Amino acid sequence: MARVDDLARRVQRLEDERAVVDLLTRYGFGVDSDEADATAAMYAEGCTVEVDGTTSMRSRDDVAAMVRGPGHQSILPRCAHQMGPFSVRVDGDTATATGYGRVYLRTDAGFEVWRVSAGRWELRRRGEGWEVAHRWTRSIGTADAQRLLRDGL
Amino acid sequence: MARVDDLARRVQRLEDERAVVDLLTRYGFGVDSDEADATAAMYAEGCTVEVDGTTSMRSRDDVAAMVRGPGHQSILPRCAHQMGPFSVRVDGDTATATGYGRVYLRTDAGFEVWRVSAGRWELRRRGEGWEVAHRWTRSIGTADAQRLLRDGL
Amino acid sequence: MARVDDLARRVQRLEDERAVVDLLTRYGFGVDSDEADATAAMYAEGCTVEVDGTTSMRSRDDVAAMVRGPGHQSILPRCAHQMGPFSVRVDGDTATATGYGRVYLRTDAGFEVWRVSAGRWELRRRGEGWEVAHRWTRSIGTADAQRLLRDGL
Repeated sequence: MARVDDLARRVQRLEDERAVVDLLTRYGFGVDSDEADATAAMYAEGCTVEVDGTTSMRSRDDVAAMVRGPGHQSILPRCAHQMGPFSVRVDGDTATATGYGRVYLRTDAGFEVWRVSAGRWELRRRGEGWEVAHRWTRSIGTADAQRLLRDGL
Repeated sequence: MARVDDLARRVQRLEDERAVVDLLTRYGFGVDSDEADATAAMYAEGCTVEVDGTTSMRSRDDVAAMVRGPGHQSILPRCAHQMGPFSVRVDGDTATATGYGRVYLRTDAGFEVWRVSAGRWELRRRGEGWEVAHRWTRSIGTADAQRLLRDGL
Repeated sequence: MARVDDLARRVQRLEDERAVVDLLTRYGFGVDSDEADATAAMYAEGCTVEVDGTTSMRSRDDVAAMVRGPGHQSILPRCAHQMGPFSVRVDGDTATATGYGRVYLRTDAGFEVWRVSAGRWELRRRGEGWEVAHRWTRSIGTADAQRLLRDGL
């Protein structure tokens, strides 16, 4: 019985890690397909999202407004937000994912790398799944991006 | 006993998802290393592959012919087909993977992003592994690519 | 009991594959955040690292010296080493990971793809984790890179 308990705990951890990476992958699908509400639903009410030093979102409404806003709309439908690779640590009902993100853009001339960033995502269990509670993203080429990566080592 | 049955089912699902992503990763190895037969063997006999609106392959022979054809040969050995990230859903003996793909190219000047696409891959269990039954790929920057990603949300 | 043994073996394999990919992902974090010692600790004492045909590292000290050396320092902090996707095979206390790696660079003009490579990583179990014993990396666009990918098929 103790062995089955131990196995159940280990399988749960593998499932949790897989679910966290799946959510972050689908975050890319959400913003690239202009699905503001579905993207917002991946975040916790009362989330914080800090990009390049500015806390630009503090709620699901803010996330939806970002998707619908002029900045993001200006790169639709030409963008591809590809998330990862990530290193994920699950601790009970919270998880941390550290990793990279890239935004590719289709242009008249072909395809270009528009942005490369490092990120730290803190997540919470919500029902059967997970939600993003706090996120920090930094463009590479900065000491801040290096700090995020170092913390994920 | 019911708990062990439940665990076995969950482990099988994790193994299946891992096997699907592994197959799609090795699809990249196959086309980049000019292995037409090994690449074709990853597909089902009677597969369909639709790229940018045209169903260009309907059999393993078609897949092998694509690898050996002038289009693909013109970018060998300079190309790298990097698949993912994917979100995978397994349902018994079928699975769906939604995600991105990138083709990088080595040029005289260095390296470039040659193609970025969204894809939906439908797979079937075959013996110990999986095979690709149907695949849709769309270059990013199109409403069709957005639709594929939206369906994977 | 035999069923639980079988499940334990399968869960161990999934955990091992996940740990190998996690280590290779964090290798990127290590070199990008200028953490020479943490990066070196991911390798086995007596490791070999062959890049584009030259065995340039034969010990943890060599790995740390590479991170601290003029070549790597010249691209810090502007680089992002993103590893994968990988196909991993675990066999008891050894594992092989075949896959791609990309180095992105932030420049005054934006972001560029600085290097795309194929790699074969041979790893050994060490305590609770894994370490890199032997690594071969080849820039794409070469027959050697194709050979590495073909061996991972």
